[in-house]
Amino acid sequence: MKKHNFSAGPCILPQEVFKEASQAILDFNGSGLSILEISHRSSDFVSVMEEARNLALELLDLQDKGYKALFLQGGASTQFLMTAYNLLEKKAAYLNTGTWSTKAIKEAKLFGEVVEVASSKDKNFSYIPKSFSIPNDADYFHCTSNNTIFGTQIKEFPSTSKPLVCDMSSDIFSRELDFSKFDLIYAGAQKNMGPAGTTLVVIKENILGKVTRDIPSMMSYATHIGKDSMFNTPAVYAVYVSLLTLRWIKAKGGIKAMEELNNKKAELLYAEIDRNPLFKGFAAKEDRSPMNATFNLSDESHKETFDKLWKEAGVNGLNGHRSVGGYRASMYNALPIESVQVVVDAMQELERKI
Amino acid sequence: MKKHNFSAGPCILPQEVFKEASQAILDFNGSGLSILEISHRSSDFVSVMEEARNLALELLDLQDKGYKALFLQGGASTQFLMTAYNLLEKKAAYLNTGTWSTKAIKEAKLFGEVVEVASSKDKNFSYIPKSFSIPNDADYFHCTSNNTIFGTQIKEFPSTSKPLVCDMSSDIFSRELDFSKFDLIYAGAQKNMGPAGTTLVVIKENILGKVTRDIPSMMSYATHIGKDSMFNTPAVYAVYVSLLTLRWIKAKGGIKAMEELNNKKAELLYAEIDRNPLFKGFAAKEDRSPMNATFNLSDESHKETFDKLWKEAGVNGLNGHRSVGGYRASMYNALPIESVQVVVDAMQELERKI
Repeated sequence: MKKHNFSAGPCILPQEVFKEASQAILDFNGSGLSILEISHRSSDFVSVMEEARNLALELLDLQDKGYKALFLQGGASTQFLMTAYNLLEKKAAYLNTGTWSTKAIKEAKLFGEVVEVASSKDKNFSYIPKSFSIPNDADYFHCTSNNTIFGTQIKEFPSTSKPLVCDMSSDIFSRELDFSKFDLIYAGAQKNMGPAGTTLVVIKENILGKVTRDIPSMMSYATHIGKDSMFNTPAVYAVYVSLLTLRWIKAKGGIKAMEELNNKKAELLYAEIDRNPLFKGFAAKEDRSPMNATFNLSDESHKETFDKLWKEAGVNGLNGHRSVGGYRASMYNALPIESVQVVVDAMQELERKI
Repeated sequence: MKKHNFSAGPCILPQEVFKEASQAILDFNGSGLSILEISHRSSDFVSVMEEARNLALELLDLQDKGYKALFLQGGASTQFLMTAYNLLEKKAAYLNTGTWSTKAIKEAKLFGEVVEVASSKDKNFSYIPKSFSIPNDADYFHCTSNNTIFGTQIKEFPSTSKPLVCDMSSDIFSRELDFSKFDLIYAGAQKNMGPAGTTLVVIKENILGKVTRDIPSMMSYATHIGKDSMFNTPAVYAVYVSLLTLRWIKAKGGIKAMEELNNKKAELLYAEIDRNPLFKGFAAKEDRSPMNATFNLSDESHKETFDKLWKEAGVNGLNGHRSVGGYRASMYNALPIESVQVVVDAMQELERKI
């Protein structure tokens, strides 16, 4: 039996992707070789990398608009550092909406002054600050579009003349946005895009070259752009599985189709959270993330009973992060709505039992 | 038909590893989940990471000797940078034996003075410099144990009171050495250890904490040691396949057994290179690498005929690197001696045809 996988990341990917990804380990493209043993300079893999880079831009509607797509290593945690290395000359503005923003701010401080324009730390990051101003002399503005741990999501991004940098690790390819408003988008693959081990970076080239420091090769976006994301050996398999997932997104109707299904899944679950007196949502309603729904029991004494119910129903990964407690249902692109119904059923079953 | 894969890296891994690695994509450990969709914080994956770290130390005979093993991202190229970030306070000594040493030197220069103690660039890196002295005030000495591109290998490492840092990307786990002579060993996985996407770092903890600069979290060995190599989401699948490969090495008799087979393969091929008047070896004989044999045709006009011979025999990846030309046979641990015989047969067939 396949599980209903609500893991926050690494997370569920389409079953079709798993099948093709498994086959390629035995024989890639009928080459007689495993994808794990081919040269990253082989034409077979160079094609994979090129298609993945192009398809990422195509899905984001950023082709021919001055952007480059890269598949790097090191996760968003490395991007916290690279962002500042490449862009922070004197001062940068950061919006603090949770654990990942906080970490990004910490790294940036090693490279210059960081202005925290607003923070929702006062209420354990359960909401998105709406009113703040970005200093005129900031080199860029940085925000986190979706907060996996707290279950909040930015719905409207600020209009600013400064380069707009966004960590979209947990909601890229999940909803339609005007991505051309952003100058630098980065995302660890392991939510909607692929397995752990590669990071998508989409960057508008004209924001580079403005800092005076020497940048080590691996930390420099210009290095990676200059070598079409092949400056060093890339994470071959993680890029390949990301490509399979991007192809799946396109075949299913692109980001628009993903968003429609994601909204249906989110409405189904949040409706039950709001209806069922045994549960309460954690995040402010207007800031709720369709990707990660965080909720708690009204009465913690029901924990053992509820945990038994969802586990027996084949649900995996519903435990909340320690910063919030309770439960977190991560409903990334590949999660079927049937899995959400299974959790809703368990919540209703608890109500009948109590 | 399986190919005879002489690719320089990513490269051949054991067939048993491919089979198990393919199965885990569909169902990992009978969990009903793909290894690509499980949380890196799940007990299943934490066990993988712990076993891989322990097994790496065990195979190197470095357990309980003050070393930690880490599986990081970013390849050796990131280690060029991290090494200097963490260890270079004023001055470092580097031995330049090829492309990768040269790159390591370039990155280190951003952090302090670099003394190139010797270089074989004068003869296109076809040999290993033997006589050089390491400055008394160097923070560490850095070398590259095996030069994939040029086909040379350091046979004897210098005795020095300074921390000994070594890039062993292309020959780790291939030969017995007294690894306790080294203070920091790093190796991109994609030769003898696993697929591209993770880097093994083996570090003696007491060499850390001696530089005064602030080190970004992701660049700091101390950060990764403090979190048992799970500071951020690791490259889950690449670590898993590395574990499968390390288990295979152990089951086959450990590094000692690998070395015996590697020497047999190397002797078979180098004997033919030296015997066959149509070929000449590139590297100095005493510095020849058992991992990567580089050789050229005595007469380039035979290229088309020879290329046809080995390609028709099912050989993959025999073309030399552009820095050397000719041919390069990479004979990593998982390459069967039968594959080497196929190349030798093609060389002899060329001799009969000419």
